[in-house]
This record gives sequence, structure tokens and C-alpha cells, in this order.
Amino acid sequence: MGIDIGGTNTIVGLIDAEGRCLAEESIKTWDYPRVEEFVDRVHAVGHEQAAALSVSLVGIGIGVPTGNADDGTIHASNLPWKGVVPIAALFRDRFHLPVFVTNDAKAAVLGEMTYGAARGMKNLVVVTLGTGLGCGIVLNGALVYGHDGFAGELGHTIVTPGGRACGCGRRGCLETYVSATGIKRTAIELLATEVDDSPLREIPYASLGSKAIDEAAARGDSIALKTFRYTGEILGLALANLVAIIRPEAIFLQGGGAKAGPWFYDAINRSMDENLLFLYKGQVPVHRSLLPDGAIIGASALVWRARRG
Amino acid sequence: MGIDIGGTNTIVGLIDAEGRCLAEESIKTWDYPRVEEFVDRVHAVGHEQAAALSVSLVGIGIGVPTGNADDGTIHASNLPWKGVVPIAALFRDRFHLPVFVTNDAKAAVLGEMTYGAARGMKNLVVVTLGTGLGCGIVLNGALVYGHDGFAGELGHTIVTPGGRACGCGRRGCLETYVSATGIKRTAIELLATEVDDSPLREIPYASLGSKAIDEAAARGDSIALKTFRYTGEILGLALANLVAIIRPEAIFLQGGGAKAGPWFYDAINRSMDENLLFLYKGQVPVHRSLLPDGAIIGASALVWRARRG
Repeated sequence: MGIDIGGTNTIVGLIDAEGRCLAEESIKTWDYPRVEEFVDRVHAVGHEQAAALSVSLVGIGIGVPTGNADDGTIHASNLPWKGVVPIAALFRDRFHLPVFVTNDAKAAVLGEMTYGAARGMKNLVVVTLGTGLGCGIVLNGALVYGHDGFAGELGHTIVTPGGRACGCGRRGCLETYVSATGIKRTAIELLATEVDDSPLREIPYASLGSKAIDEAAARGDSIALKTFRYTGEILGLALANLVAIIRPEAIFLQGGGAKAGPWFYDAINRSMDENLLFLYKGQVPVHRSLLPDGAIIGASALVWRARRG
Repeated sequence: MGIDIGGTNTIVGLIDAEGRCLAEESIKTWDYPRVEEFVDRVHAVGHEQAAALSVSLVGIGIGVPTGNADDGTIHASNLPWKGVVPIAALFRDRFHLPVFVTNDAKAAVLGEMTYGAARGMKNLVVVTLGTGLGCGIVLNGALVYGHDGFAGELGHTIVTPGGRACGCGRRGCLETYVSATGIKRTAIELLATEVDDSPLREIPYASLGSKAIDEAAARGDSIALKTFRYTGEILGLALANLVAIIRPEAIFLQGGGAKAGPWFYDAINRSMDENLLFLYKGQVPVHRSLLPDGAIIGASALVWRARRG
């Protein structure tokens, strides 16, 4: 069982030992203000899926923002449950199965290198664009956890001191600009600063999503196109700086925000090319991940890897 | 023999198997516009040192900006020799000894973890503040080279788009603000923007060094103190962002710029504390390296490690 807990949706799926996703269901994370109710709901979904497929569960892999692989806790700013939550213990007590926890973006990079286009790569980065911006880093063939498991918080690097307010309590974090939510904030800001006609003017802030903005861009909407250009400029600079620090072979984008059209990738690549040090120019491709369900597959890989020993 | 090739000075020294520096001499890198003359001069210095001590050389370790461990070449923007220079081959042909090349900052972090205060650490960073800003990163106990050996170019992350001109041809790189040269550029800029009396007004740009600015700060000079406050603010933010990405256990500063007084470290720590994500606050100390001759000792460690197999 692979679980991808996100700041908006949680995906629950069953994945076999070859990385095939057999069943998948999405639930709204914020419908469960108490974590115990959330665990109950996931338990019900997982057992329904297993019964329908006549398979048995052998373990649970969880990818979640700030997921700590060492002690199985979370401590996230984007989730309904505050403080340090012992998520692994809660699931273990409910399922009586082995439970593995890691950061959602670390699960994504594990999925990409185990089953995706990054097979064989030793140095790579996966950036997930959802409610926040997650980042999973593999160097010398191994996941980068850092000293205490909290490496990879690229989304909380400050790119504009004094800029947009972030869920972490600070201002100007990359994820306030570059994430599904960041894309939406930029579109709303452009509706205020520009006078272009746009169907986006009919959608309230609370209902707008990065998908609607991408669809508007596909129809040539200038606010939507400017939104992706602005987002791509900021992401391209951030990735150029990341390349200077760790020099990955390639970068993969996953998550809702990564599903945007070529207008987004053109802007990212143009900005990277402008901002890369000469040593790296043209050397580090940015790919849209072709791995559907990357995070739940990556989370499940934690279980299968452990069983193989 | 350990060699630390810098954008201003090159240090040549003899180091024994226990990391003790037996002899050390500094030469001016830019006195040798032809790399062959440079190699000749280092050859003469090394053989004089060895003769005076009655020791024999067993190998050469070289730390140099953009030093590529795989093919033994350099490709630096701060050095007199342009294009791709086969520095390992040049030294091998001249000395007839095994030659190991790495980036100067990677040599520094190797020295720090082999002989310095970082012994036993598995995740750490050394930042060198010289003509430029170098960065050596160790994660999971191993040097981070990235896909092609050029990881660690933190000095060439862009922190101020459109900012100060950099030797790499771009603008706003961290090292244009934070390095021995960056400190001097800030002091000169403050002489123009502020009206404070200062003995630094008597020193021409070409003769000013970070040491003179630090001495002025020690005497309470307000331009010098503002210079370190400004530099510390920018470095603190850059380190806070670096912590979010790779989460080291500690950060060590080496090089001429790192020799500054508490005014510099106070400003760095204040800025780091302001800019760190809550997860890391108070968790990542910034130390002035206590390892004298860190880079030549680290470079020599390449030789001793290879001999031990």
C-alpha cells in the first residue's frame, strides 16, 4: 500500500512488487481535522481496495511532507494536524503491518529512480509541485536525508526576502511562488495588476486551481500565459542555483503543477539557460515526470525494498 | 605535497601522513601568466622544501577552483590560464609522481573531516572565502561531486539578479558579495554611499584587502563594521537556504575572509537565525575553521588516502 499525503489531497493506492498501480483513490486531507479519523478512513479505503482485488496487504509506505524516516513522525505546516505527529505508529497500530515513512518528495524520487525515466541515474532531483514544493535529492545513488532527515526543503528556501507569506510563518519562500498554490497566487495577483480580459476573472480565489489556469493558457489566455512565464522564471533561477550546488544529471517535475503545458516548460528552460553557470549550460535537462502516481509508487517502493532486504 | 591554487595566492606545502604541515610557502598566482612557468616555480619550491627537511615527496595533491577529480583538468574564471588546462598531467610530467586534483573547497572539507573539528561528521559543509567563494559538501560521509565533478559551486548561485558583475560573466553571484573580494567591494561601495569618516578612504581599491577592513572593524571603524554586517546578512541567508536543501550537521568557514572578527560571525548567525526554517533553528552551528592550512592539508589527504588504498 502506498500513501501520498498532500496538503490538499491524499492518494491511497495498492502497488505490486513490479511497481504497477492496481487501485487508487483520492481523499481530501482537510476533511479529517483529527489524525485518528484520517487513519480510520485510509484503513477503510485500503481494505476495500484489497478486498475488491482479492490481494493481501504486506506493508505500508507513506510519503508525507516533513515525513521523518528515522522516527516515523511528521511536523508539517501544510497539514491539518499540528505539532509532531507519530504517523507511522498510528498506522502500525491500526493495520498491524510494517509501516515506512518518508518525505513525499523523497518517495517521488525513489519512484522515479526505481520505476521511472531516472533508472540508472546516480545524481538526480525530483521537484513536486502540489500545495507546496517538495524536493527529493539522490546523490551518489543514495537518498539525501541530511543530518536529521530534513534535507530537501527547497520549497522553503527564501527567494524574495519580505515576499509572499508562507505557511511556515516566514515570507518569500520558493513554494509561495512555485507550486500549484503559487501558480494560483500569481494568477490572482496578475488579475489585480494587469487589465487583460480573462475568463479567470469569473473564478473566486478559493475555487481556482492550477489546472484551470493551464486550460486557460491552452486557449491563449494572456493572464494564464503570463502566470506560467513568471512561475517558470522563478523556478528556472532556483533550479540553476540548485544545479550549482549539487549538479544532478537531470531534474524531474511531478505533481499537479507539473502537468502544465509547454508554455511552462519553455519558460523554465529559458530561465535556466539564462541563469546557469557556463559549466552547466545545456547539460541538465528538466523533464516532466512520465511516472503516473509517482509518489504512491515511490512510497510503496520503501516496502518492497525492505522485503528484499 | 599539498598545493592550494587560489585566485590570488598559491600555497605550496609539505604534509606528513598524520596531517602535520612541515613547510609552507606562498606564491602569487598571477605572476605566472603561462601555466608551464607556474608548474616550474612550484617544482622549484617543493624541491627546496624537501631538501631543507631531508624528506622525499611521495605524491602531489592539488586543490584548485573547478579542479576536476576525474580528468585532472581545470576550467576556472578566477585564474590566469584560460580554457581547459590539464593541470594534473602538467604536474605529473614535471614531478614524475602520482598527482591528485580536486576542487579547492573539496580539498578543504576533506581536510576538515580528516584532521579538523569535523572528525566523525557525516554531513557537513566547508565554505572558503578567498578571491571567490568555494564550497565543499560531504553527505552520507562522502564528498559530493555531482554528475560531472562540478557540484559545490555555491559561490555561483545568483542571489541578486542583475547585481554585481562576476568573473563568470554573469551578475549577482553570491561570491561577488561574499568572499574576501566581495567584502572589499562592499567596503568600497559603502565609502561611496555613506559619509562616515574612515581610514579606509586613504586606501585605493587595488591595495585594499579583507584583512585591512577587519583591522579597521577591530578599531571600531563604522564603514568596516557595516561591511561585515552587510556581508554577514547575505551569507546568513545563503547558508539558511543551503541548510534547507542539504541539512548539514555544521558549517565551517575557511580562507582569508573567514579570519574576520566576531562582528562578522555575529552578523552571520543573526541572519541565519532570522532566515532558517523552524525545523532547523538553532540546529546548525557556523564555525570558523580552526584548521590552519586547511586546503593544502586536505589536498595532501588525497595522496595519503590513495596510498592507504
